[in-house]
Amino acid sequence: MQSTIGQYLLDKLKDYGVEHLFGVPGDYNLSFLDLVEDDPHLQWVGNCNELNAAYAADGYARLKPMGALLTTFGVGELSAINGVAGSYAESVPVVKIVGMPSRSVAYKRKFVHHTLGDGEFLKFYNMYREVSVAQTILDKQNALSEIDRVLRACFLYKKPVYIGIPADVVHSPIEIVLCSPMPPKSDRKILQTFVDAVQDVLKKSKSQAVLADYEVNRYHLNQELKEFIEITHLPLVSLSMGKGVFDETHPNFVGVYSGILSDSKVSALMKQVDCALMIGVKLTDSLTAGFNYVRKQGHKMIEIHPLYSQIGERIYNDILMQDVLKALAPLKFKFHFPKKSPPKTPKTPSLHGKLTQDKFFKVIQGYLRPDDVLIAEQGTSFFGALSIPLPSGVSFIGQPLWGSIGYTLGALLGSALANRDRRNILLIGDGSLQLVVQELSTILRENITPIIIVINNDGYTVERCIHGAQRQYNDINMWHYSKLPSVFDVQLARKCLSFQVSSVSVLQEALNIARTEDSKLALIEVFMGKHDAPALLKKLGALLSAQNNA
Amino acid sequence: MQSTIGQYLLDKLKDYGVEHLFGVPGDYNLSFLDLVEDDPHLQWVGNCNELNAAYAADGYARLKPMGALLTTFGVGELSAINGVAGSYAESVPVVKIVGMPSRSVAYKRKFVHHTLGDGEFLKFYNMYREVSVAQTILDKQNALSEIDRVLRACFLYKKPVYIGIPADVVHSPIEIVLCSPMPPKSDRKILQTFVDAVQDVLKKSKSQAVLADYEVNRYHLNQELKEFIEITHLPLVSLSMGKGVFDETHPNFVGVYSGILSDSKVSALMKQVDCALMIGVKLTDSLTAGFNYVRKQGHKMIEIHPLYSQIGERIYNDILMQDVLKALAPLKFKFHFPKKSPPKTPKTPSLHGKLTQDKFFKVIQGYLRPDDVLIAEQGTSFFGALSIPLPSGVSFIGQPLWGSIGYTLGALLGSALANRDRRNILLIGDGSLQLVVQELSTILRENITPIIIVINNDGYTVERCIHGAQRQYNDINMWHYSKLPSVFDVQLARKCLSFQVSSVSVLQEALNIARTEDSKLALIEVFMGKHDAPALLKKLGALLSAQNNA
Repeated sequence: MQSTIGQYLLDKLKDYGVEHLFGVPGDYNLSFLDLVEDDPHLQWVGNCNELNAAYAADGYARLKPMGALLTTFGVGELSAINGVAGSYAESVPVVKIVGMPSRSVAYKRKFVHHTLGDGEFLKFYNMYREVSVAQTILDKQNALSEIDRVLRACFLYKKPVYIGIPADVVHSPIEIVLCSPMPPKSDRKILQTFVDAVQDVLKKSKSQAVLADYEVNRYHLNQELKEFIEITHLPLVSLSMGKGVFDETHPNFVGVYSGILSDSKVSALMKQVDCALMIGVKLTDSLTAGFNYVRKQGHKMIEIHPLYSQIGERIYNDILMQDVLKALAPLKFKFHFPKKSPPKTPKTPSLHGKLTQDKFFKVIQGYLRPDDVLIAEQGTSFFGALSIPLPSGVSFIGQPLWGSIGYTLGALLGSALANRDRRNILLIGDGSLQLVVQELSTILRENITPIIIVINNDGYTVERCIHGAQRQYNDINMWHYSKLPSVFDVQLARKCLSFQVSSVSVLQEALNIARTEDSKLALIEVFMGKHDAPALLKKLGALLSAQNNA
Repeated sequence: MQSTIGQYLLDKLKDYGVEHLFGVPGDYNLSFLDLVEDDPHLQWVGNCNELNAAYAADGYARLKPMGALLTTFGVGELSAINGVAGSYAESVPVVKIVGMPSRSVAYKRKFVHHTLGDGEFLKFYNMYREVSVAQTILDKQNALSEIDRVLRACFLYKKPVYIGIPADVVHSPIEIVLCSPMPPKSDRKILQTFVDAVQDVLKKSKSQAVLADYEVNRYHLNQELKEFIEITHLPLVSLSMGKGVFDETHPNFVGVYSGILSDSKVSALMKQVDCALMIGVKLTDSLTAGFNYVRKQGHKMIEIHPLYSQIGERIYNDILMQDVLKALAPLKFKFHFPKKSPPKTPKTPSLHGKLTQDKFFKVIQGYLRPDDVLIAEQGTSFFGALSIPLPSGVSFIGQPLWGSIGYTLGALLGSALANRDRRNILLIGDGSLQLVVQELSTILRENITPIIIVINNDGYTVERCIHGAQRQYNDINMWHYSKLPSVFDVQLARKCLSFQVSSVSVLQEALNIARTEDSKLALIEVFMGKHDAPALLKKLGALLSAQNNA
């Protein structure tokens, strides 16, 4: 079958579930954009800048099988690289496409614009090698196999890949061969060896529990995890990178693990467990109170990852998480649930008066509904949101490992476009919003209707918790946040609600209006104290500060 | 003498003329920021995001001996890297400082936040090697010599350098030894050989002229160039990257060279000249109409660079531009000025009616005053501004090689802080402004009072000139640009003028008010046609489009 290289790339992206392409036009990608604009099954989402586009592709790829973004050469791709690095750190499958100068220009080492003026055309490709699992530059000879190889790597490893497409290559005709890629498959023998090894561990263990984290989300194995828990009856805690990985209203869900800063129920469980089944977990500083674990001495870990598993130093390759869970489910597990804690705070607590961080998150807790998407910026928002038990079906998006502030506004654009039927609720601080604020314009233009809550607490409160509480460098300029939509879209009136709130009752009122008028974007500016922060963040800040001086 | 590593770095930066440090706080640089904030001779300029900070440091370093910016590890430095790459491409001396995790954390390969969670701590350092001339990570053993080495490289080569300072190293005491660095020096013998070679070329040449470009600006050798011209009486044309390198009211200034798109006077000169003295020139596509030169067949080039010179294939190393100019000045040059063109358009042309690109730049031409700083965004702004003869002492800032759209708003922050006594005038398009708009907040906070002219022409007109004139991907969301200041600063009223203009007379009125009320920032939103563009850009767009299909 005849196609062109550019069109073949788009067709393969669609095969992997991509329906939106984020990015910014630039003169080395314009002819590729012609194809995108003319494709009835693909929507171009032009962003205000490339970093925000990368964040959007990441947010999109957390809820869809894959995300993609397009930039121009040099300037565009370097502006996006921090966002792609975040996808790499947190294992999000994003395809980074870059329109490159024509091959003739590159072979002649011409000093063209958007280069460093040194005749080098591979420097940015080299940079991307540090933050992607596969890279290619397309030409007529390699396009078919390279596109297949690189997209498969993205799908398999849930990490970014890099595809360069020179301007003169886009419309080159190629003969395509249709073939479905082989799905990954477990090695049955290794799987049996692993099951046996787990059985040996269980024999010596008195109490087990599951710790589940983000990799389960990335490989969309939440249903498989649920079935595993419902057969084994094991208690489960999640980690904060994978908050929402498991239904938090399920009787087997205990809470979110945060090292020595975990709540009493999680701590009680972890002190009892002598064998932890770590399902899709990576232990990082912000998930573990700076590597200050609470766990039983001499405890054992069984690590189950999407493509391999591990006990102690031994790695079991080529066994897939879904097959491992199925194979382990019939084993005999032993466990004790922590004692029932006093009944939870009622869904809509009777709060009143001036807003504090504590009251704010209690209000949000009562406000969430099943199937909402909750997005929490790394800062007071994220650490406060960790304490909220999520209603069934709620997806949670945060970035605790990479922690690039401002990430969530772009991510919201992506997550909201991933499924227009779910209500997206973003919690973001003023400092973080300032980094990326223009993307509000794209959110308005795309007619998506999230609820955006801007916490105006006059600066970088997350930094104040770590160091320099009274320092000027943690101050920011004071904006009229609630007026932003009126500037970023001239057709505003029909699309947007805007509020300023500083008390519980007014917040609740604003939230209720926002929920009812769900055909409008709602921006709620919430005033809170400069030094007020969730207890978890205050304690973690001190631990991270100590880590800096170690 | 006793100091600390962090303080020694700051002291050396001040020695090199740095008085402002741009950047964004992050938890790996906070304790270094304590030193900055406590230093009475250094001002911290907290930016809204790191890319804008890098642009600001670049704009600053174009008017000062050196610029500097500070970010945190990973997230911050990658957000800034596009800006630093621009400084590398266009030879701007910027010191990129990054606060890193403590050495203990790195040596133990801990999975801490702002890393990729893979135990690697040198990936971002490796990326920066592609866009800096010297790199270092400081510790107690190397700090003294490394700081000296790296800053000297920045000073000498006018390119970015990268300094990593781990959190635990900042306050380490060191014993410092005061010594002034040796100034660079020419090799007298090589200089004489070069002068002889130039004399040989001149013997066979009938007509010479000078092409001067950006390197003269970067090494601040404008006075030396002026003296050379006043002794030799040679005609001079500049290139657009170095527009303003030579007094454009000087009788020897002929115009700006743009390859086959040069004006008639410059073309006439270039067709006559059989030997060009290229002083600080690099020939790139956007300076030369896509490498479409106008020049006499068989012409010779004598290239004079800041640290070496060249005739044909032969390089003469270790001779400095200032010494070369002095040594060549007494030689006998031959030249013919192009015929006098008809008298220039009067300073304030009698224009009226609806604004067009053509009328707009004529108004700006009449508006500029000696010693203004004119900053023109890569787009209609830059290519229109090229046609304006600059009054004496005007500095011109643009980014035609790297061409990262949005660069100029950050650059304006830097250039305006470099000298608060000069009036800065920025010309920027709506599309470009949207990438970086938040930095307007920092400009307001710092109480600098530029005149910002936003060309609202409904999208990426520069791209429309290259490809996709009617395509939707070149559209952007329509904002209320003139209202931006009222959102980005709550204490606005006393600081800001804001206008919307679409006719010549209203533009002139707004400009006059802005000039008079010079203690206020003025934002002038100018409405122009979507497809209207300076003639030079329209022609260049077609040539660059052809280059993409070559």
